[in-house]
Amino acid sequence: MTADIDTFAVNTIRTLAPDVVQKANSGHPGAPMGCAPMAHVLFSKFIQNNPKNPKWINRDRFVLSNGHACALLYVMLHLRGFNVTIDDLKSFRQLDSKCPGHPEANHGVDGIEVSTGPLGQGISNAVGLAIAEAHLAATFNRPGYELINNYTYCILGDGCMQEGVAAEAVSLAGHLQLGKLIALYDDNHIQIDGDTALGFTEDVPKRFEAYGWHVQVLDDGDNDLAGIAAAVEAAKKVTNKPSLIKIRTTIGFGSKNEGEEKVHGAPLGEADIQNVKTKFGFNPENKFFVPEEVREFYANVSKKSEEANAAWDELYQKYSQEHADLAAELNRRQKKELPKNLIESLPTYTPADAPVATRKLSEILLNKVAPILPELVGGSADLTGSNLTRWKTAEDFQHPSTQLGSYAGRYIRFGVREHGMAAIMNGIEAYGALIPFGATFFNFISYASGAVRLSALSKHQALYIMTHDSIGLGEDGPTHQPIETLASVRALPNFLTFRPADGNETSGAYLAALSNRTRPSTIILTRQNLPHLAGTTIENTLKGGYVLQDVEGKADLTIVGTGSEVSLAVDTAALLLKDGVKARVVSLPCWELFEEQSLEYKETVFPAGVPTLSVEAMTTFGWGKYAHASVGIDTFGASAPAPLLFKKFGLVPDAVAEKAKKLVAYYKDTVPENKLRRPF
Amino acid sequence: MTADIDTFAVNTIRTLAPDVVQKANSGHPGAPMGCAPMAHVLFSKFIQNNPKNPKWINRDRFVLSNGHACALLYVMLHLRGFNVTIDDLKSFRQLDSKCPGHPEANHGVDGIEVSTGPLGQGISNAVGLAIAEAHLAATFNRPGYELINNYTYCILGDGCMQEGVAAEAVSLAGHLQLGKLIALYDDNHIQIDGDTALGFTEDVPKRFEAYGWHVQVLDDGDNDLAGIAAAVEAAKKVTNKPSLIKIRTTIGFGSKNEGEEKVHGAPLGEADIQNVKTKFGFNPENKFFVPEEVREFYANVSKKSEEANAAWDELYQKYSQEHADLAAELNRRQKKELPKNLIESLPTYTPADAPVATRKLSEILLNKVAPILPELVGGSADLTGSNLTRWKTAEDFQHPSTQLGSYAGRYIRFGVREHGMAAIMNGIEAYGALIPFGATFFNFISYASGAVRLSALSKHQALYIMTHDSIGLGEDGPTHQPIETLASVRALPNFLTFRPADGNETSGAYLAALSNRTRPSTIILTRQNLPHLAGTTIENTLKGGYVLQDVEGKADLTIVGTGSEVSLAVDTAALLLKDGVKARVVSLPCWELFEEQSLEYKETVFPAGVPTLSVEAMTTFGWGKYAHASVGIDTFGASAPAPLLFKKFGLVPDAVAEKAKKLVAYYKDTVPENKLRRPF
Repeated sequence: MTADIDTFAVNTIRTLAPDVVQKANSGHPGAPMGCAPMAHVLFSKFIQNNPKNPKWINRDRFVLSNGHACALLYVMLHLRGFNVTIDDLKSFRQLDSKCPGHPEANHGVDGIEVSTGPLGQGISNAVGLAIAEAHLAATFNRPGYELINNYTYCILGDGCMQEGVAAEAVSLAGHLQLGKLIALYDDNHIQIDGDTALGFTEDVPKRFEAYGWHVQVLDDGDNDLAGIAAAVEAAKKVTNKPSLIKIRTTIGFGSKNEGEEKVHGAPLGEADIQNVKTKFGFNPENKFFVPEEVREFYANVSKKSEEANAAWDELYQKYSQEHADLAAELNRRQKKELPKNLIESLPTYTPADAPVATRKLSEILLNKVAPILPELVGGSADLTGSNLTRWKTAEDFQHPSTQLGSYAGRYIRFGVREHGMAAIMNGIEAYGALIPFGATFFNFISYASGAVRLSALSKHQALYIMTHDSIGLGEDGPTHQPIETLASVRALPNFLTFRPADGNETSGAYLAALSNRTRPSTIILTRQNLPHLAGTTIENTLKGGYVLQDVEGKADLTIVGTGSEVSLAVDTAALLLKDGVKARVVSLPCWELFEEQSLEYKETVFPAGVPTLSVEAMTTFGWGKYAHASVGIDTFGASAPAPLLFKKFGLVPDAVAEKAKKLVAYYKDTVPENKLRRPF
Repeated sequence: MTADIDTFAVNTIRTLAPDVVQKANSGHPGAPMGCAPMAHVLFSKFIQNNPKNPKWINRDRFVLSNGHACALLYVMLHLRGFNVTIDDLKSFRQLDSKCPGHPEANHGVDGIEVSTGPLGQGISNAVGLAIAEAHLAATFNRPGYELINNYTYCILGDGCMQEGVAAEAVSLAGHLQLGKLIALYDDNHIQIDGDTALGFTEDVPKRFEAYGWHVQVLDDGDNDLAGIAAAVEAAKKVTNKPSLIKIRTTIGFGSKNEGEEKVHGAPLGEADIQNVKTKFGFNPENKFFVPEEVREFYANVSKKSEEANAAWDELYQKYSQEHADLAAELNRRQKKELPKNLIESLPTYTPADAPVATRKLSEILLNKVAPILPELVGGSADLTGSNLTRWKTAEDFQHPSTQLGSYAGRYIRFGVREHGMAAIMNGIEAYGALIPFGATFFNFISYASGAVRLSALSKHQALYIMTHDSIGLGEDGPTHQPIETLASVRALPNFLTFRPADGNETSGAYLAALSNRTRPSTIILTRQNLPHLAGTTIENTLKGGYVLQDVEGKADLTIVGTGSEVSLAVDTAALLLKDGVKARVVSLPCWELFEEQSLEYKETVFPAGVPTLSVEAMTTFGWGKYAHASVGIDTFGASAPAPLLFKKFGLVPDAVAEKAKKLVAYYKDTVPENKLRRPF
């Protein structure tokens, strides 16, 4: 009987998913049909999550890394009683649907933990989810209270296997011995170009063994439900290695074109759907059909999860009594409240303080903030000594057997794996009780941009600490000097970019980044020392832009800069004043927050009638939004000591002053455009 | 005696490289000292390249993937007689030096094949170089004329091993059975964060075996020169697999801090340098010292390469007689001349032709151009059927044993490996006789941006064919819809971005991209059909921007669009005319080429006094350069049929017309800023 209902359920999925795609007249039926058995086994026998309390912290996490197969995920969530109705399934890929063409986290469907579809991201997010579990277990579990012990399950396909981001993340997962991460590899031999023989002939099991994973291989993923279940059970028993279960499947199983690329990315067509339904003993005329027995079966599964959740709640009640502080802390984190003493811990500075590189100011801040912000976890892509992201009391996040740290440690040695790092950060954040950070040279955020984009789309509060932010990096040269990079991140929606000018702005940037719970941020920091400026404050920084230095009477121009170019603007203004040119100085550390200020406020920063000169040691691209003329670098940089580079590229006071005078002369008889007031 | 001179030479490198770094007071001495033995073996016994003819097409290629170790590379090139003098070595990392902090291709030093330093790129470029060799050998070699048979050697370190881009490329290299690719892995157990035990504990040899590589392991890379040479010899004998030789070394060998991270990224200091020199039997007072014996030894090595080059020249002379056509073709390609009949092969269209998606127009073009442009090689990151990049007569580039193609094939099945694809393209282009292209959805150029940036910096003519260029992608949703992407590539220096509006512009974009031999390009194409417009021509497209449609008398505004929004601009203008508003329409397919036109020309496109409205179905970021107001999408997209999305985001004629009217009203009484004339 169990076997029967299981097969019945699998066939329900295999007939329902193609209906979803057909109705949308768009999507991917093949993988849902091929993965139906493994999804059924996971969702019916293993995944404990509760539709009535979808944010239960100790729920098992499931990630569909081959996100194009999401008709499967929506179907499974529907069957398990999550907030995906049959009508929602019918709205798949339609305007304003809860069920977009690829799964999106924080888009209205409970049970979708992360956004997937861009290949390789999901399995990397899963590594992050498993890191979060391991860390929180080590942090909050106490004898008799195994509060956190969930598994992270992931289904992934050939595409994910080929992506470098996945290679980076799974290598780290092996090193970290993440025993509660279990990945099921949908080995269907088909990718979009055709047979995987065209370009993907590596020995995947051997590769994963090389990474330190436990590997099992199953030959009949189309039918062998017991085998899949046994393999998952076996994987659960391996506690010091992540597990890969390679499962041979037939894409589009049941379709006339099963096993072919044709079934991958287009609806089957009504005729084939009818054939599929007939083949599986379903009435070919029924659409979006879930047999009552199957519905009941899954309802019972969810009921067991509810019971598990209830038992956990009971445990948590007792824990709250015995470990009140820990429980309060876990509550605080889940409610996304910051510690009350965060703000007062932020360093502030005066112009009397010695010049310091903003990366160093970031380190000083982390030394103060990290100890009181235990949800902050992260590290560097092997540039710790340059990014200065490891606070003094940090312990490494490592498997205890390495004697290099423990799972209670919060400093992650990401290795030279920028893209994997960012995708892992997204997974850590998605778990729900941690704020992840990652660091590298700013230029190399480009290596990670596939995942950075998903931080923004998925509203993950991930913190990108990016140092060596310009030609100020110096001798390492143009291969390492960002030029276009700042424009790229500024153009990304739902993403905060901070380029602080000194100590107070660095503190302000961190405060804003830590306070924005549904937006990722990047804090972009210098290698070189910068003076502390008169007029910078945390409060000003939170506005995104402000007048650092005004003039008496009518100003001739406004010089706006960010980061290291704010002090350059100040020096330029002083130089100009000697020639009787009155320059206001504006610091604009965060365009996005500035945009959110009132027009009234913004016009105090960029007053009408005063021409604006922007100065930034990288591309001028985008500055047309605020500036009437721009000083910057629209070529690649160069290799030399930083001061010589600033001179070479005209980013020194006398060169900027020359251009400022040209700007003033240009607008002598005309009124510069008010950039803040637009026609719509 | 041979052993003695070899050791003497190695010690010369080990004392010279630290001098280079010390003089610069910046750089990485550790890896040059640790890799000196393998570099010496390669450069003295294997690498055939000729300082007197550095572009000899059949030279062996060498890539230093751990580019931070470039003091080593500059030293080796100096010793082998390339155009790096002792004075050049003394100028390492200084302003306007030939020897920047990381190696840059096309920056004045012969023998630097590709730009490295951003980790993982070099080994991936090496895969591209090996692909180029295999392809050109299959294309040009004839019985008795093994014209092309060079090896590609690469040294890489732990950092490269950890990067996903490298994982992608080496996986493909294994599949392609690139037997002439030989990589030496500097296994020194040290990365910037410290011991590799911190985060990199995978079994690298096993991983590479899983990829299908031949793997050897050497225990004493500090001393065992014979062992290294024997391993390289053995690798050369393996003709159907790329080879990895894992060589255990001591970073900073000879330094007081050898084997520690300290020697990685900072000069040793004078005291330690003196210690090193003493240890190796050198006079500690001598700086930049090359013993005469060592100089002679390397001069002899280069002489042998010269002789080999001369023998090859002789062979080529005979080949030119016996296979005149082939020789002429190889000459043409090396001279970077395009086939004379290229232009006439480009399709042109009239408005009477049926609407077609620009990706399809690209396919039509490739079907005409690819057969007459045999240097065009490339493929898609597993989206062939969507990118439409495979021409009808294409053969796959595959090892013949697969029976899926041959090395003479020009269509590369990159797999879902976007970053690897781009880095491989750079390597293919660096070989010198091919124009590589790669394709994916435009959104996923972000996965590849680390390598795309290096295409631009290194002046590689790589062609990025990017389809599904906006919300026009439709149902796949925001995870796949570019928003910030176009701004990112426009902000990149030395990079051409084309977003053609129809058939003629697609042809123009390809012509410009193929004609620009030192600039990479991206051609950004729609999924959806677009009409052919009156006024588009190839010639207009080459100007980057032009007036598509003018008005009689004084215009009320200019509407500027690119790609799919040009026809939207035309439709909007028609709608506006009904209300008496006269709108000019400008198409701006390539900002970079437009910028290169004369001011006089540009002012015919954007005439003074007429306000400009930009319309583009993605971020408005950057449009402030040309437009007084912008219609675009500054949030993420959505999942729905494309026409509904264009409506949702206000990219339909009536919505744009509303905004156009607001723009006109806004400038009713004021003169809009002339965006083309700036103060400097």
